[in-house]
Amino acid sequence: MAEQIHLNAFTLACPSPQFWGAWKLPNDESAEGFLSLDYWIKFAGILERGKFDALFFADTMGVSDVYGGSEAAALRNGVFAPAIDPTILIAALAGRTSHLGFAVTFATSHAPPYHAARLFSSLDHVTKGRVAWNIVTSTSKVNEANGLGPVVPHDERYDIADEYLEVCYKLWEQSWEDGALRLDREAGVLADPDGVHRINHRSEHFSVRGPHQTPPSPQRTPFLYQAGGSPRGMAFAGHHAEAVFLGMQSPDRVREMVDTIRGNAAAAGRDPKAVKILMGFRCLVGESERDVRLRRAEMEASSSAEAALAMYGYWTGHDLGSTPDGVKLGDLASNDFASIAKSSVLVDNRGDATVGDLKAAIARDGNAIHFAGTARQVADQMEELIACGLDGFNIVTGPVPAGYEEVVDLLVPELQRRGLYRSGYRETVLRERYLGKGQKRLRPDHPGARFRRR
Amino acid sequence: MAEQIHLNAFTLACPSPQFWGAWKLPNDESAEGFLSLDYWIKFAGILERGKFDALFFADTMGVSDVYGGSEAAALRNGVFAPAIDPTILIAALAGRTSHLGFAVTFATSHAPPYHAARLFSSLDHVTKGRVAWNIVTSTSKVNEANGLGPVVPHDERYDIADEYLEVCYKLWEQSWEDGALRLDREAGVLADPDGVHRINHRSEHFSVRGPHQTPPSPQRTPFLYQAGGSPRGMAFAGHHAEAVFLGMQSPDRVREMVDTIRGNAAAAGRDPKAVKILMGFRCLVGESERDVRLRRAEMEASSSAEAALAMYGYWTGHDLGSTPDGVKLGDLASNDFASIAKSSVLVDNRGDATVGDLKAAIARDGNAIHFAGTARQVADQMEELIACGLDGFNIVTGPVPAGYEEVVDLLVPELQRRGLYRSGYRETVLRERYLGKGQKRLRPDHPGARFRRR
Repeated sequence: MAEQIHLNAFTLACPSPQFWGAWKLPNDESAEGFLSLDYWIKFAGILERGKFDALFFADTMGVSDVYGGSEAAALRNGVFAPAIDPTILIAALAGRTSHLGFAVTFATSHAPPYHAARLFSSLDHVTKGRVAWNIVTSTSKVNEANGLGPVVPHDERYDIADEYLEVCYKLWEQSWEDGALRLDREAGVLADPDGVHRINHRSEHFSVRGPHQTPPSPQRTPFLYQAGGSPRGMAFAGHHAEAVFLGMQSPDRVREMVDTIRGNAAAAGRDPKAVKILMGFRCLVGESERDVRLRRAEMEASSSAEAALAMYGYWTGHDLGSTPDGVKLGDLASNDFASIAKSSVLVDNRGDATVGDLKAAIARDGNAIHFAGTARQVADQMEELIACGLDGFNIVTGPVPAGYEEVVDLLVPELQRRGLYRSGYRETVLRERYLGKGQKRLRPDHPGARFRRR
Repeated sequence: MAEQIHLNAFTLACPSPQFWGAWKLPNDESAEGFLSLDYWIKFAGILERGKFDALFFADTMGVSDVYGGSEAAALRNGVFAPAIDPTILIAALAGRTSHLGFAVTFATSHAPPYHAARLFSSLDHVTKGRVAWNIVTSTSKVNEANGLGPVVPHDERYDIADEYLEVCYKLWEQSWEDGALRLDREAGVLADPDGVHRINHRSEHFSVRGPHQTPPSPQRTPFLYQAGGSPRGMAFAGHHAEAVFLGMQSPDRVREMVDTIRGNAAAAGRDPKAVKILMGFRCLVGESERDVRLRRAEMEASSSAEAALAMYGYWTGHDLGSTPDGVKLGDLASNDFASIAKSSVLVDNRGDATVGDLKAAIARDGNAIHFAGTARQVADQMEELIACGLDGFNIVTGPVPAGYEEVVDLLVPELQRRGLYRSGYRETVLRERYLGKGQKRLRPDHPGARFRRR
């Protein structure tokens, strides 16, 4: 039997993220629901019924102001705003599920590592070991404008994040010995001071003495996700990530990225197979080809070019709204062109492609439904990608949660029939689900494990 | 009928805080439970059965190292550590209750105001308007040692906090117009950009442009608690606090403090009666005098002098563990003496009182059961204090949650019989419970209200 794959649902704590426009469909519940607990509880329940690994919360702070030089496009289309803080939802959802994991995005740039370490230890306790941290390092002009810290050059951000992770590993892995939470009523010892240690960390950016305030949680270190696509980001992932999340790629590119990530892991002294690689994609699953055709037409009719352009502005910092559509990409100022050129893979590589061509291509790409089909058709496409070395998928569908009910009711049984997917949960701790029974804590070959006390 | 009083339960997300030693009693559930959701859900359910206003979470980051120059005393006795992050519990508890409010302590020193504003808007949404922010400004050497920001002189901390609150008010009250979250499917407008505004805040310590990322929550600004006891702290409270929390005081001192706080509120242009004043106390309620006697003896036998001394070290920064007991207070170095002298009200004001005398007094005071009695006796003591101008109480009892079951089953009915306490919840939004039906948002005379758009 093939190794079984992993499935996450990808969301933000805002209406139907990434599947722009799905909130407008009549059977969407996300726009009315994203501010209420009931909506998230229903969503998590559907995923648990589908034996999903985890509900994955992306997050970003602030409202993007790049496209058109204002927040209008982001707000009108719900591009990462309006949103709430996802960290507050996790315990509530854990209390209504028993196996589903929860991945939470938290930036290493907005809060000190002591804060992050306490937050994730707390989440791991109340979820009984079902929490993952999606590590992001991003700082943007919007963050800076909102007093959330200065913009830091890309590679330096990862250098700082390496130090940040080291502080967290020491708090999680080194500060408290197992059993130091004694709860000895006779002796009057709640926690044994001899088993709780300062970490005395000093590095260029952080001085943290410890000890950690929270006793060891089931996983100690939360399961670690990361999604860096740049060379420095992929080196960081090779070092720290236990699961890496790629954007949608062609099979050839998947092979290449999988090789790079696993090579980086090996270079960091890790078993390359212990780094799980997931790909995000937007999909629609229908009961029949006719159903798929109608659903696709409905989705396409509700799609939003403006949302895609706001997203593009958020990711690249380039405002395509302030340049006339007729301008040729080749005539743009050279430094703008350098980074826009990366996106020009979206248009034919003719020298005479215009800003208008690029915008049309971004609108198509940003609203593309990567996989649309019956369960059998979508499962075939997933199998093709698994053959390239992927371990699983981050699924985006809409409307929410109805689109996920289709995935659970149609696609999941098809994957199960093929022996590709679990028929039930075997383990509760999230790391065990990825790395095998008994592997509740970091593997010994993970760089974080070397901070353990001997 | 007298105006009805308010009752909160005071806790931290750690075992039996403030009622040191209660965790050792056989019917305590806090030591085994504080890391699990089930414990907190049970605790919240008991309070809702007792029609409590709110569950109040104090919080502090790090493990105090003052007493004896190490973390040993704090860890052994559970003085604010081990603990978890209380912010993650609120949604889970709101999902299992329908009226109980939740007050969360959050320091203005550890995270930027944009972060705090988003966090509290999120909590207020998922609780449907049941959240309060307990504003603290404290920075300590322990915070600093853990990379959570430098120690800032006392009065300057409040100056910074004034600016911090101004940023939050602008994000909560000014950034989003009512109705800007349009959810207009036909027009394709999720949020109306014309109704969402940047705040463009610039002051000495903060530059925050906005807009806020989260639409207006039921209360917009969470209900605001504060507990400063210093002159500058009480001025801050007069300006910002909607409920002020005092430590246990004598009736005369209560009168004096109530007058000061209400005077400060009037000076800030507010209706002095709109600032509610609550006092914290440790209590035991028994079914009979015999029961009270036995419970008191049991509690006293489990009390901990070391816990009280660790607490004293945490609050004052003075390590009484490193000075021999025989040293006279008058012989201590003058700067130490200046602040220790404040505590010497705990001992007779004889010039020859020793460090040993002071430690004994701190141990007594730190473990004192302020009110112990049958429901009738405790209610009498509460009435005496209400006559001094108090609006209610923050109750600490133990073991947890059994001690709160006694309060709910014995004391609450006695207060109800006297017409002092609600027999049922009338309103869901926390501010309405304090300020009256319809008062979901800041009163017009609250300084935060002047940041509203006209």
